[in-house]
Parts: sequence; structure tokens; C-alpha cells
Amino acid sequence: MSPEELEDIDEWQEAVLRVRYAETDKMGVVYHANYLVWFEIGRTEFCRARGFSYRDMEENENAFLVVAESYCRYKAPAYYDDVLIVRTHITELRRRSLRFGYEIVRESDGVVIAEGETGHVVTDGNNRVRSFPPGFAELLLSPPTESQNVGDLVPEDEPPL
Amino acid sequence: MSPEELEDIDEWQEAVLRVRYAETDKMGVVYHANYLVWFEIGRTEFCRARGFSYRDMEENENAFLVVAESYCRYKAPAYYDDVLIVRTHITELRRRSLRFGYEIVRESDGVVIAEGETGHVVTDGNNRVRSFPPGFAELLLSPPTESQNVGDLVPEDEPPL
Amino acid sequence: MSPEELEDIDEWQEAVLRVRYAETDKMGVVYHANYLVWFEIGRTEFCRARGFSYRDMEENENAFLVVAESYCRYKAPAYYDDVLIVRTHITELRRRSLRFGYEIVRESDGVVIAEGETGHVVTDGNNRVRSFPPGFAELLLSPPTESQNVGDLVPEDEPPL
Amino acid sequence: MSPEELEDIDEWQEAVLRVRYAETDKMGVVYHANYLVWFEIGRTEFCRARGFSYRDMEENENAFLVVAESYCRYKAPAYYDDVLIVRTHITELRRRSLRFGYEIVRESDGVVIAEGETGHVVTDGNNRVRSFPPGFAELLLSPPTESQNVGDLVPEDEPPL
Repeated sequence: MSPEELEDIDEWQEAVLRVRYAETDKMGVVYHANYLVWFEIGRTEFCRARGFSYRDMEENENAFLVVAESYCRYKAPAYYDDVLIVRTHITELRRRSLRFGYEIVRESDGVVIAEGETGHVVTDGNNRVRSFPPGFAELLLSPPTESQNVGDLVPEDEPPL
Repeated sequence: MSPEELEDIDEWQEAVLRVRYAETDKMGVVYHANYLVWFEIGRTEFCRARGFSYRDMEENENAFLVVAESYCRYKAPAYYDDVLIVRTHITELRRRSLRFGYEIVRESDGVVIAEGETGHVVTDGNNRVRSFPPGFAELLLSPPTESQNVGDLVPEDEPPL
Repeated sequence: MSPEELEDIDEWQEAVLRVRYAETDKMGVVYHANYLVWFEIGRTEFCRARGFSYRDMEENENAFLVVAESYCRYKAPAYYDDVLIVRTHITELRRRSLRFGYEIVRESDGVVIAEGETGHVVTDGNNRVRSFPPGFAELLLSPPTESQNVGDLVPEDEPPL
Repeated sequence: MSPEELEDIDEWQEAVLRVRYAETDKMGVVYHANYLVWFEIGRTEFCRARGFSYRDMEENENAFLVVAESYCRYKAPAYYDDVLIVRTHITELRRRSLRFGYEIVRESDGVVIAEGETGHVVTDGNNRVRSFPPGFAELLLSPPTESQNVGDLVPEDEPPL
């Protein structure tokens, strides 16, 4: 697949989460390592929106997306109870590897909290590099299905009194 | 408030979450310490459903619910990508302390994953015991507002292909 | 083994750790769920001091100590960079289960940070209850070997300038 | 300070840690986000070896090293109970920022587990950029003091039976 083709079908997937107390640190903001956990939620939902669960790929296809690289730029602090949108897209797809790009945005004010990227290698259960199971690379590049409703992922902020 | 009164208004609040890859351990199931994090999500949503955010109570009222005790009984393993329902209720409410009870249930099969309890003391920002800010104990005992819609907290499991 | 015998050989094992920044929360103290992680470090070192690694028991003997219950009482806050001593002992040992008791003490001032207990069931890799592998229960009750040197587990607090 | 000067005084600091069960995931290896936590331990010990604690810098000097960027390349899996050496050095030091480089090596076989880098900005307690407190930049570039004894940071692997 040429870069042009990838660009044509490039789609961002949104996942929504709420910052947990456990994710903050003594500086009063989210501890930076948690962003990598959120990126993982982003790619899990990216897969689910395209018709397969990453869990099934591991369990039924013996294919794992091992993390080979991670990068994150922290642009603004995130706070406890913030609702954040993790936007995920594919930046590179090869036969035995892929890269995801991410953007984390605070829902209330649209501030970009962080940007990042992860590189992955496809392996079998014994940590040996393999290619994607048949059909999965195609699913990753397919448009998301209709059923996603990201606006309802977290409770509303201000229930009427 | 007498125990009878507490019983009368006893209400369970449900919060829904999806198990993260980061929450699993090498045994292939969720690492047990994460259940305490989920309990915290349960009480956060318990508060929100009753018209206030725990964050506001900390920031605007200088009142903190410090954890004084935790107990958890692990009844069945939880797995990556499971959708879990955290059910939370108040088991004791005093002027300067309260206790929450929890039940975690797997959505797909109704299996009870865990039961637990946490005891809390109300403190100010300097770790001194204080009583609840005016009105907050009443909100905790009030019925939940209408706006909660816990069924939509997480993406659907099986988007149509 | 009768309770009297257990009492006779009761030995506490000490493990030392330093509080990580990641373990704090926005209240400026350690987030309470981390105490369960420290308890686990306590029992890992309890085993190692008695001549076997818990990792080996899992990998070579197919025996897992699944956590069935946890309890913790939080008595004083712990802070970033504190050196803590996790004291661990066995409070009950049966053919297919055991319980550990814990005490966490701050090294600098001797303050007891927390006390707790965990209950465990011995299982095989398929989550079925089994008895301890031969010899392991005996090792758990044996006195610690000489080689432990817990005073050197963490760097000194105040290197000379 | 010119790049040549930095090179002249470049010193790596070693910190030693043992992989916790809580740090593993269902793939049986360490979950990748934990490497960022270990990097933080690396720079904490880097500071301590040069005569100051990062905690003191936060509490007494109102200076925080906010993480602005993180990068990690995962080269080999790490396993539960592995003893790892986190090697840390400074790759760039400016008036209001610095960068650390890291290498994580498994002690038993010398395998390089990961390499990484973090970029930091010096801020005050209100998230405003400031310069280093007087003397601290000099300490960061000074050679380590004698008192560090990293070989004893963790218990021995194989106590004699």
C-alpha cells in the first residue's frame, strides 16, 4: 500500500475516558506514564470500531501487537475527573508492523493535552515476528462501522439537581 | 440518622468500565490491586449521580475522603476487555466518616467478580479530621438524578461487520 | 500443623522499598491501592529469604498463589521518596491456602503506615485449586537464610556532599 | 555550557530494581508504560547520587521537572522478578530545561531491555517556566559522591539453601 492510499482511507477513531484519581500524582496532574495506557485504549477502540477485538486477535489468531517504540509529547496538564478524547489513527501499515498516531484532547475546552505515536511489531505467542492474520490488515484500513457512539462513553458532567 | 433510615434510602449506583490491558498481569487476569481503583470509580460516580463531583468537594470545600480501610474479596477472575459493572452503595454514614460497599459484576454473564468495602474519614487539606461540608451528607443520601445512563458508558462489544 | 507450632516458628521478613513518584496522587500522598502492590513485594521477599523464588514456583511447579482476599488499614500517610519497610509473616498455613499479615513502617521515624492481610489459594495454571508442591509449605515455615541484607535495599538518603 | 564540556563530565548513574508482579501483563512480560516509571527512578537516583533529593528541590525550592517529552525503544522483554539496571545520564542541560537519556539492562545476562529519553522543563508550583534554583544545575553536572552502592539495591537472587 502506497502512502497515497493510506492517506485516502486515513480515519481517526475517538475513544473517551475520564481521568481517575489513581492516575494523578503529587504535582496535582496526571502522571505522565498513564498517557501510554490511554494510547492503548485508543488503539483497542480503533480495532473494535473496525469490526474486531484485539483480544480475539490474541486469543484466536495467536497474533500480538508488541510495542516496539513509544513517543509522547506532553502539551498541557490533565486533571482528575477531566473527560478526555483519545484520537487514534494509523500512520504506517506494513506486512509485519504498524504505527499508530494519537492526539489527546480535553473535551470541555478542546485543549490538546498530548500527542504521541507507538510502533508495533506483529508476533506470535513466542515473541517471534510474523505477519498479520489474513484479513486483519484490511479491517484496520476499513472505515469504522456505524455502531460506535463515543459521545456516551462517560457519564455526563453536570446532572441536573 | 438511624440505621433504619439509611436502609430506607439505600440505593446502589452502577458505573461501567472496560478492563484495560495495563490492568492484567502475567497470570492472564486482572491484577488484584486494580479492584481498589475501580472501587474509587464506583464512589466517584455515586457522588456524580447525586448531584456533585468529588473533585469539586476537594477543590471548593476543602474536604477530602481519605481512605482509612479497604477490604476486597476476589470471587472470580476478570479478563482483558471484559465490561464490568461496579455497584456502589453507602453502608454507614456518620458526621466525619462513611463507608462504601461494592460489588463488581461482569456484564456479559452476570458473574460476581468481587465484593468489597472501603472506610473513609473526612479531612481538610492538612489531614485533620473534619465533618462533611454542609449539604453534602444529604446529597450522598439523596436518590440519584435522572441523567445517568450507565448502559452507554462503554462501546458495544460486537459492532456489526 | 497446629496453631501452636505456627506460633513457634513465626518469623517476620522485612523488605525495603522507596516510594516512587508514580505512586503518589493529587492529595500529595501515596495512592492507597499501591499498598497491595507492596504487600506482594513483601511476600515475594518472604519466599526468597526462605530459599525459593515465587517465580520458580509458578514456572516450574505450576502452582500459583491466587489472591482471594485483601485487607488494609491505612494509619498514616506515606510520601514520595520515603523509605518504607514492609514486614511480612504467615498468619495461617493450610494444605491449599495460606494467609500473610503485613505491617508497613517508615524507616526514618518508625511510624506505622499501614497494616494488612491477604488470603491466598493455591491453584494450577487453569485456576483449579490444588495443594502446595512438595516441600514448599516446609520452606515457607523454615527460618530465613543468612544471605538477606535488607538494610542495603535502597540507596542512602543523604550522601555526603 | 558547550557540548564539549557536557561530554567531558558525562557520567552515567545506575539504579537497580526488581520487576514487580504488578508490572507484568497478560503477555507474560512487563507492560510497556512501566518503563517510564523506571526512567523516573533512574533520574531520582541520578540526583541523589549528586548530593540532592528531587523531593527537596520540589518542596524547598519550588522547582519541578515537568515531563515535556518521552521516548522509549523496547528492545527485549523483561520478566517478573528480573533484576534490572537503569542507567541514566544527562544529554542536554539548559537554563530552563534538561534531557535525560536511559538504558535498561538485565543484570543476569546483560541484555539491553530498552533505551529511552525524556525532556523536562523547569517550572514553579504554578506550572510557569522558571530557571533552575541556584546551584542545582552545577550539582547535576558534578560527579557522583562516593556513598552510592548500587550493587546492594535488591536482595540476592539465590540465597544458599
